[in-house]
Amino acid sequence: MLLAAAGSATAQSAAATTSKTDSLNIRKLYDEALLRGQSYANLRDLCTRIGGRLSGSPQAEQAVQWGKTEMEKIGLDRVYLQEVMVPHWVRGAKERARATGAKGKGIDFNVCALGGSVGTNGKLKAQVVEVKSMAELAALPADKVKGKIVFFNRPMNPAYVETGRAYGEAGDQRRSGASEAAKRGAIGALVRSLSLAHDDYPHTGAMRYEDGVAQVPAAALSTNGADQLSQLLKADSDLTFELEMACQTLPDVKSYNVVGEIRGSKYPDEIITVGGHLDSWDLAQGAHDDGTGCVQSMEVLRLLKVTGLKPERTVRAVLFMNEENGVRGGNKYAEVAKSTNEKHLAAMESDGGGFTPRGFNIEADAATVRKVQRWQPLLQPYGSAEFNAGHAGTDIGPLKGQAKALIGFDCDSQRYFDIHHAATDTFDKVNRRELELGGASMAALVYLLSKYGL
Amino acid sequence: MLLAAAGSATAQSAAATTSKTDSLNIRKLYDEALLRGQSYANLRDLCTRIGGRLSGSPQAEQAVQWGKTEMEKIGLDRVYLQEVMVPHWVRGAKERARATGAKGKGIDFNVCALGGSVGTNGKLKAQVVEVKSMAELAALPADKVKGKIVFFNRPMNPAYVETGRAYGEAGDQRRSGASEAAKRGAIGALVRSLSLAHDDYPHTGAMRYEDGVAQVPAAALSTNGADQLSQLLKADSDLTFELEMACQTLPDVKSYNVVGEIRGSKYPDEIITVGGHLDSWDLAQGAHDDGTGCVQSMEVLRLLKVTGLKPERTVRAVLFMNEENGVRGGNKYAEVAKSTNEKHLAAMESDGGGFTPRGFNIEADAATVRKVQRWQPLLQPYGSAEFNAGHAGTDIGPLKGQAKALIGFDCDSQRYFDIHHAATDTFDKVNRRELELGGASMAALVYLLSKYGL
Repeated sequence: MLLAAAGSATAQSAAATTSKTDSLNIRKLYDEALLRGQSYANLRDLCTRIGGRLSGSPQAEQAVQWGKTEMEKIGLDRVYLQEVMVPHWVRGAKERARATGAKGKGIDFNVCALGGSVGTNGKLKAQVVEVKSMAELAALPADKVKGKIVFFNRPMNPAYVETGRAYGEAGDQRRSGASEAAKRGAIGALVRSLSLAHDDYPHTGAMRYEDGVAQVPAAALSTNGADQLSQLLKADSDLTFELEMACQTLPDVKSYNVVGEIRGSKYPDEIITVGGHLDSWDLAQGAHDDGTGCVQSMEVLRLLKVTGLKPERTVRAVLFMNEENGVRGGNKYAEVAKSTNEKHLAAMESDGGGFTPRGFNIEADAATVRKVQRWQPLLQPYGSAEFNAGHAGTDIGPLKGQAKALIGFDCDSQRYFDIHHAATDTFDKVNRRELELGGASMAALVYLLSKYGL
Repeated sequence: MLLAAAGSATAQSAAATTSKTDSLNIRKLYDEALLRGQSYANLRDLCTRIGGRLSGSPQAEQAVQWGKTEMEKIGLDRVYLQEVMVPHWVRGAKERARATGAKGKGIDFNVCALGGSVGTNGKLKAQVVEVKSMAELAALPADKVKGKIVFFNRPMNPAYVETGRAYGEAGDQRRSGASEAAKRGAIGALVRSLSLAHDDYPHTGAMRYEDGVAQVPAAALSTNGADQLSQLLKADSDLTFELEMACQTLPDVKSYNVVGEIRGSKYPDEIITVGGHLDSWDLAQGAHDDGTGCVQSMEVLRLLKVTGLKPERTVRAVLFMNEENGVRGGNKYAEVAKSTNEKHLAAMESDGGGFTPRGFNIEADAATVRKVQRWQPLLQPYGSAEFNAGHAGTDIGPLKGQAKALIGFDCDSQRYFDIHHAATDTFDKVNRRELELGGASMAALVYLLSKYGL
């Protein structure tokens, strides 16, 4: 209701401040994307020739070189690498897990270490106590937790239409479950995968140890696996769970953000950043998370270039390193921008997958949100006109206070968490048209920002 | 722009005519669909246990019995079959095709007969002439066409955001290509598949012979195959194409629409129909076309039933038979409704796949369209609020003039034609949440129609 109201209330001012030319230019951007878009071919390259690219891995470094080379091909005014030290966590040999009941028959589980977890140093073997929340854990008597593995099994809430909201609400289990468990004397943590699919793939993702708390191993179970373990525990609460993981954290490694830019023709010192993150988890190809955001950001520059729509302000594509387990690239980019007194007009991020566009989430003061919403009618013919105030993104987050507006590209969220951080996040899950439409939507808004400012 | 304007202009009147109760009741429908929806499980059954179900086939009859049984399980006031005679076209043995150039080396092509085509009666062997349009065909000299196979190779226009529009514009080639070719003396027709994907799967679909024109065989090539044949013809315009198809039309067969209804509590004589088509092409499982529309229509009744939202007007789910090659079921349903003086308030159809909902297309007079648009704000939280005037659907089309409004469920159209009428239209292409959200959106609008009328 808010959306529709905002749209029409500002339709007239949009008509006043934009022109028929804008409408035609935006059509040009979409035509180029739909007829000759390069996002899909670039994504195929990144996913199938390099694959998963966790920070610090050889693949991450290949991806840096790939990004630089591909941006150079577009013929930009400047392409460069921005150095940043990143964490280097490695999974090691494939993880193993087994539950054994009183009758001695073992059942194997698909598990994966959560990113940042310590290994088990051989086999970890303990009883399991299941909880649905931190509060439930806190309320358990000490002897129910001590020496055990805590199994966090609260599902993502499927009733939310926006899946990101369900992800956010269930995320504490993965992020801080291990330390919360350790505070109560537990020796390990198992976490139900943050996924709305019912399948056998465990989903990894970042976890963090709290300072001064014992570091215990943490692993994800698939959603089916979590349901199964819960059933087994109902029948035999004394069953023994064995977990074997060889993951470890190595010293930090030098890596890079990859940056390419078209210099603004009128206001070169005003910068519009558009980016995705180049690193991914190691289990799959990092297709929707976030290869799509990278190729779309590069495509924004290419679309502006080949359509001849020279931006009046500087437009910069950034392939951020290390979003997944540290945000070191995003932090570095904001730090450098601050220390060199760069004037950031806006920063846009695509990190919700390469699905059909719905619109944008705008993180700015109310007046600036309304300014961006003026352009909503121009995106209406492309189904990308849901312009709402909201969280924009992780990598551009550190630019808050430096950029007038942070803008998150918003696309259909139904399928994202089915494959997010799991072995299933592969190139074949991406639809060419959905991906290219996203790049075009982003280019359209960047074009308007570069022409009218904020 | 129109959409947003319409939304807010009517927001106040919506607030006046609907209540907080409506908002809560709609939430109930979505909760039930997202938490315990049955569409996905029903679709798995239909697709994997019965599969493709072309009119007249044993599978179509199994599907009729399946639909009746499943509707009976919901506990409706009435479930019945409505008899209708349907065409019975059979594909016969797998089709074969080969192009052979001057150098004698043959290249095989994936082809499939278009639905309704005659067979080749052995091998059809001829040279090929490629055209992009009926106008181009008409302009060719007689000797360029006579005795040849006409190859219609105009792609669907990828620049349209709404893929249905591109399908509509390219469809003449498939529907009437054979007769247009025959009028110029050609002995066969090849048609580029109506798909926006670049792959090796031919897409079938209905074609019709014009009265008094020679009936020549017509087959579809995959999009990759069409590109390849076009390349070969550029190098060697005299190449010979061999086509072998065993398809034929048998006598009409008795079949059925499957109907289930909840009687209206206040106005039982006012009917709201919601339907999809039960028949499908034979090449795949008919998942998105239109198993999804069937299970969603059944789900509308189930959602109303289990949430206790007794409709004030009669709500009827119809699984139409024979949409694909005859629309006999849709015609029969409207005929019976007319002959029995049924009062149809509205008819809704889902036949664009089971993808994420976007809204509804409303086919009615302007005042009625505005009445339906009053409810747009209630669907806004679910991302299903694009209420536009537009074409509603094929099976409910014959109710035009009898029903006050025809309403087409509108969902994301990007992936639909990639798999439409091809071997790839299988259950695994359907996402559970996208499908269930569609059923909930349809139920929400049916609930409002049943409460407020038009």
